[in-house]
Amino acid sequence: MAVVVTNIRRAPQEHADECAALGVATLHEAQGRKGLCAARLRPIYRPLSIAGSAVTCEVAPGDNWMIHVAVEQCRAGDVLVVTPTSPCSDGYFGDLLATSLQARGVVGLVIDAGVRDVATLTEMRFPVWSAAVYAQGTVKETLGNVNTPITCAGARINPGDMIVADDDGVVVIARDGLAGVLERARTRVANEEQKRARLAAGELGLDMYDMRGRLAEKGLKYMEAEE
Amino acid sequence: MAVVVTNIRRAPQEHADECAALGVATLHEAQGRKGLCAARLRPIYRPLSIAGSAVTCEVAPGDNWMIHVAVEQCRAGDVLVVTPTSPCSDGYFGDLLATSLQARGVVGLVIDAGVRDVATLTEMRFPVWSAAVYAQGTVKETLGNVNTPITCAGARINPGDMIVADDDGVVVIARDGLAGVLERARTRVANEEQKRARLAAGELGLDMYDMRGRLAEKGLKYMEAEE
Amino acid sequence: MAVVVTNIRRAPQEHADECAALGVATLHEAQGRKGLCAARLRPIYRPLSIAGSAVTCEVAPGDNWMIHVAVEQCRAGDVLVVTPTSPCSDGYFGDLLATSLQARGVVGLVIDAGVRDVATLTEMRFPVWSAAVYAQGTVKETLGNVNTPITCAGARINPGDMIVADDDGVVVIARDGLAGVLERARTRVANEEQKRARLAAGELGLDMYDMRGRLAEKGLKYMEAEE
Amino acid sequence: MAVVVTNIRRAPQEHADECAALGVATLHEAQGRKGLCAARLRPIYRPLSIAGSAVTCEVAPGDNWMIHVAVEQCRAGDVLVVTPTSPCSDGYFGDLLATSLQARGVVGLVIDAGVRDVATLTEMRFPVWSAAVYAQGTVKETLGNVNTPITCAGARINPGDMIVADDDGVVVIARDGLAGVLERARTRVANEEQKRARLAAGELGLDMYDMRGRLAEKGLKYMEAEE
Amino acid sequence: MAVVVTNIRRAPQEHADECAALGVATLHEAQGRKGLCAARLRPIYRPLSIAGSAVTCEVAPGDNWMIHVAVEQCRAGDVLVVTPTSPCSDGYFGDLLATSLQARGVVGLVIDAGVRDVATLTEMRFPVWSAAVYAQGTVKETLGNVNTPITCAGARINPGDMIVADDDGVVVIARDGLAGVLERARTRVANEEQKRARLAAGELGLDMYDMRGRLAEKGLKYMEAEE
Amino acid sequence: MAVVVTNIRRAPQEHADECAALGVATLHEAQGRKGLCAARLRPIYRPLSIAGSAVTCEVAPGDNWMIHVAVEQCRAGDVLVVTPTSPCSDGYFGDLLATSLQARGVVGLVIDAGVRDVATLTEMRFPVWSAAVYAQGTVKETLGNVNTPITCAGARINPGDMIVADDDGVVVIARDGLAGVLERARTRVANEEQKRARLAAGELGLDMYDMRGRLAEKGLKYMEAEE
Repeated sequence: MAVVVTNIRRAPQEHADECAALGVATLHEAQGRKGLCAARLRPIYRPLSIAGSAVTCEVAPGDNWMIHVAVEQCRAGDVLVVTPTSPCSDGYFGDLLATSLQARGVVGLVIDAGVRDVATLTEMRFPVWSAAVYAQGTVKETLGNVNTPITCAGARINPGDMIVADDDGVVVIARDGLAGVLERARTRVANEEQKRARLAAGELGLDMYDMRGRLAEKGLKYMEAEE
Repeated sequence: MAVVVTNIRRAPQEHADECAALGVATLHEAQGRKGLCAARLRPIYRPLSIAGSAVTCEVAPGDNWMIHVAVEQCRAGDVLVVTPTSPCSDGYFGDLLATSLQARGVVGLVIDAGVRDVATLTEMRFPVWSAAVYAQGTVKETLGNVNTPITCAGARINPGDMIVADDDGVVVIARDGLAGVLERARTRVANEEQKRARLAAGELGLDMYDMRGRLAEKGLKYMEAEE
Repeated sequence: MAVVVTNIRRAPQEHADECAALGVATLHEAQGRKGLCAARLRPIYRPLSIAGSAVTCEVAPGDNWMIHVAVEQCRAGDVLVVTPTSPCSDGYFGDLLATSLQARGVVGLVIDAGVRDVATLTEMRFPVWSAAVYAQGTVKETLGNVNTPITCAGARINPGDMIVADDDGVVVIARDGLAGVLERARTRVANEEQKRARLAAGELGLDMYDMRGRLAEKGLKYMEAEE
Repeated sequence: MAVVVTNIRRAPQEHADECAALGVATLHEAQGRKGLCAARLRPIYRPLSIAGSAVTCEVAPGDNWMIHVAVEQCRAGDVLVVTPTSPCSDGYFGDLLATSLQARGVVGLVIDAGVRDVATLTEMRFPVWSAAVYAQGTVKETLGNVNTPITCAGARINPGDMIVADDDGVVVIARDGLAGVLERARTRVANEEQKRARLAAGELGLDMYDMRGRLAEKGLKYMEAEE
Repeated sequence: MAVVVTNIRRAPQEHADECAALGVATLHEAQGRKGLCAARLRPIYRPLSIAGSAVTCEVAPGDNWMIHVAVEQCRAGDVLVVTPTSPCSDGYFGDLLATSLQARGVVGLVIDAGVRDVATLTEMRFPVWSAAVYAQGTVKETLGNVNTPITCAGARINPGDMIVADDDGVVVIARDGLAGVLERARTRVANEEQKRARLAAGELGLDMYDMRGRLAEKGLKYMEAEE
Repeated sequence: MAVVVTNIRRAPQEHADECAALGVATLHEAQGRKGLCAARLRPIYRPLSIAGSAVTCEVAPGDNWMIHVAVEQCRAGDVLVVTPTSPCSDGYFGDLLATSLQARGVVGLVIDAGVRDVATLTEMRFPVWSAAVYAQGTVKETLGNVNTPITCAGARINPGDMIVADDDGVVVIARDGLAGVLERARTRVANEEQKRARLAAGELGLDMYDMRGRLAEKGLKYMEAEE
């Protein structure tokens, strides 16, 4: 019952660079705080910032066979997203697979499991977010699905969704909602620039966000230190 | 019942640079191995080394409102110390709050929770020790206390205590005990310089610390490898 | 009943540089996927890559006395391997012990516990793999064994075994099996070079490894995306 | 943007008892090993075994307001499924909420967070699967969604899906796929009864499953113990 | 610098039974949600419910010597509270120490570390809350403090404070604040009885707590399920 | 290179009952505090107490094929010990395998991974110590070794070693050292009986173990509580 879905619709790639620049925290806010992967996914070197369409891949614990299958489905600009069917920290991915992905123009890997050869991956400047670094090898025995909907580190990801990853982690933006999220993110960033300037000039968030009244209403009291 | 205590007494700031130079491990020893925060607090970039007076801040899980309140209580040379009332890895703190703290001369943040925008925080060179990096946003709904005694990552911290943080972690030194701790730390460092020279010259710790007798007395035996 | 075994047989040091160059992942594969330490052992800075003969050391929780004893048993080219008799994250090892080991030509430390002074250790360029970074000090009260067989982070290590450690973690190669493992590792690397070139040129792993037939036989289906 | 979806379609309740009797492990297999919640969800007492339609509820960290909203959407035979928008171990649920759910005929609670009053919940015989037991209270400030699709402990759950929970954990079965899964589960159980009898009579799985040939083909060797 | 403080003031013991009956969750609420130990402290058998004055004891990792010292300071009605100076899961406490405490009328043990002999402790009906069960033994080499202020599982505890522990965990109530906390807890319980009756009769929390207006004001929308 | 070693030498079975009665904590002490498995191995129900000769089994992550092979090697009185080659929490073992083991007279299972069907295993009274309970199924694709030396939860285990498991965890006693360990354990228990009686009568450990002098010598001070 394992399937590989081919020719998936991608997220509009012309927005990938902008997504990477906006960053995970901003896009996550702009999307209504949805789609964030769990904090265990960390970049193997820093700083890192990418965005691209998800090619999804389910693997059995300790078995990276389907990654080889998924590589063929990847195109330039894609992000390969790999999730094990049960928790596993084995090193599913190393420099040979990265060479193959880089040859196809894939912009990075997100995997809720382990990777290895991280020194070489770092030299190659191949971006990876993983749940572990572990040299343990894997077998090639069990089928899984490629380009079906998955859950990766707690986030629901459909093939073709926009994946954005940076030093703060990984967020998925639904392909069809991307335009709206980008619109809100741009506004947010514009506002933040203004806010940053005011805060840098010494204005307090308490005043800029007009918080004092509501704090008092909730009952916050100020008192001098004794002594 | 939430309070903000204003005008707390600070630790003597003239000793902050010396504390940062002495470092967490040495000061922790000089204080009788007390006051160390749990190992889960890690710097977001390295190397890092700061010291300053604690402004303490209690926050509800998933709610960073009180950090905005605490900012106003911070002065140049302070370290903001934030602890959630129950464990939470959300990203309570990002580049806007860092901009505000930097504008006030705050030397760093210690938080037993998550932070975000770590790439920007790193570019800004704003020192942060946190329990997690996570893009998850927070709300602004629940009051908490500022500048009351707290427990942060297992360590008891009073407002105005000296906080020292470096690549080894975070230690708190009681404001009034600082002079004595510094005295012992200076002696310790002086001794260590001598020891370092002797060890670098090849002398064994077994001899330098005169351990052989006590080891033998406890029953340690030496035997040649068979084979 | 604590013993220190002296003059252990070492692994052939002329192969240490080659082991370090081959790396943990490759050697682990060449050894039949045995001997890997758990993923919790991580280098304190990166990149790092060493190899040398194990001097083993068992320590009580919160007690680093035996490390001082073990130092004397270390020679140039050795790797000191320390394991607590029950889990402990205390900072067993700092810059003074590193100075002593460096003076003896020891190439690195592997410890399934905590270390401290990591900023200085990094400046000194002394390679360390540890399970934690924690400033907590230790006492000197309880005996343990030096150069007896141990389990470290789940791997069985005999004194004199070859320890190889890099950014992927730590692997142990039995002293007497080293020649065979090296032979297989060299073959593996040679093959990988060829494979890397083919993958970089765009050939798919599916074809290079001839996987398509077996995938079909197991029942893998391809289908066009709907929409 | 928070919504409560009313009058959701339920899974066919006439199959709930059968689902509970078949159990999580069997149904998970019958569904192709999909839909299992992470192992951190554990029953607060044992043995326990329930099944019913999911009413889903998203809550903010440290905030149980929406559980009160979700209660109204629950009917007899339902299972309330609560997931925090970021990880939180607070005690969201206690004996008063359980009283309310029991009054409505709800058969149990699944929550990827903490609960409290577990002694009383046990006396009341109200079935709960949770990620933690923790007395920490929550606030009522932030909206969330009720009866929208959620991810709970890594499993994708739609409102109205069949939730089955027992001592092995929690599995979700898609409402519309239930008939097929039940069919396969019944067959599986029937087969298992036969197998159990044969195994109890001393037949080996190696023979019953006819594994010897394939093991030999893969290269398994038998050898007498030396000595 | 290790001290044993003798003849500490106790919390009023006439309230211990009432505290145990009120329970951890209720008293924690009545105290303004302060003083709760981390969720890792769990009872070794259930149900359990005790209350008594804290005798505090600091121990080194892997060293239970000071527990023997602390036993002498315990009186009938006390709860022994043990915290290691750094995290340790060793089995500090077994049936012999329990026999000694039981002989003195001590009502239970709270320890942020491991215990052993749990089958015997269960038979003896000696209540224990611990962070781990682990047979690993400890040594008797290092001094620590008895009856000084400590942090145990994140909670600040002074000797003589009232410790209350049940199936929900452990809470500390400051000796001098006990009267007020009890007063609020009694009121809370009385209110809860009424609420429980109303909820059991089918009244919704949404109505009983009058939440509908504020939910609407915050923007909660109700919509019929499609389909 | 996978092998099954047949006809291993067993530990003397006439001592199994005595080992189970002596218990894990006592035998671990009598063996010089060696051979204890990590605390993550817990019994699936309590109380439990067994002892028998180890049949060892290595399995790939997510693959229980070799357990079927190992069953054939088990005899009456054995304990099956299963360890994955990398960490895995999948449910490797359920009621069918337990039926088979029970039919052969196997006294229990120790597994550093997950099990399922725990309600049925409990009804069957089949003793299991595992690192997890998880319904996730496994495949049958990859060979491993049976009755070769393994590391299980950090402990080195040779086939035929005596495994003792109870509510405190799991300990391994080397087959050939069993007589000596038993001798010391019996002495220890005899001493403990006397000590228990004296402690129950109110004698203090401080006096019984004659600790006061050494405590004073190390510098312990007693002081009256102020107030």
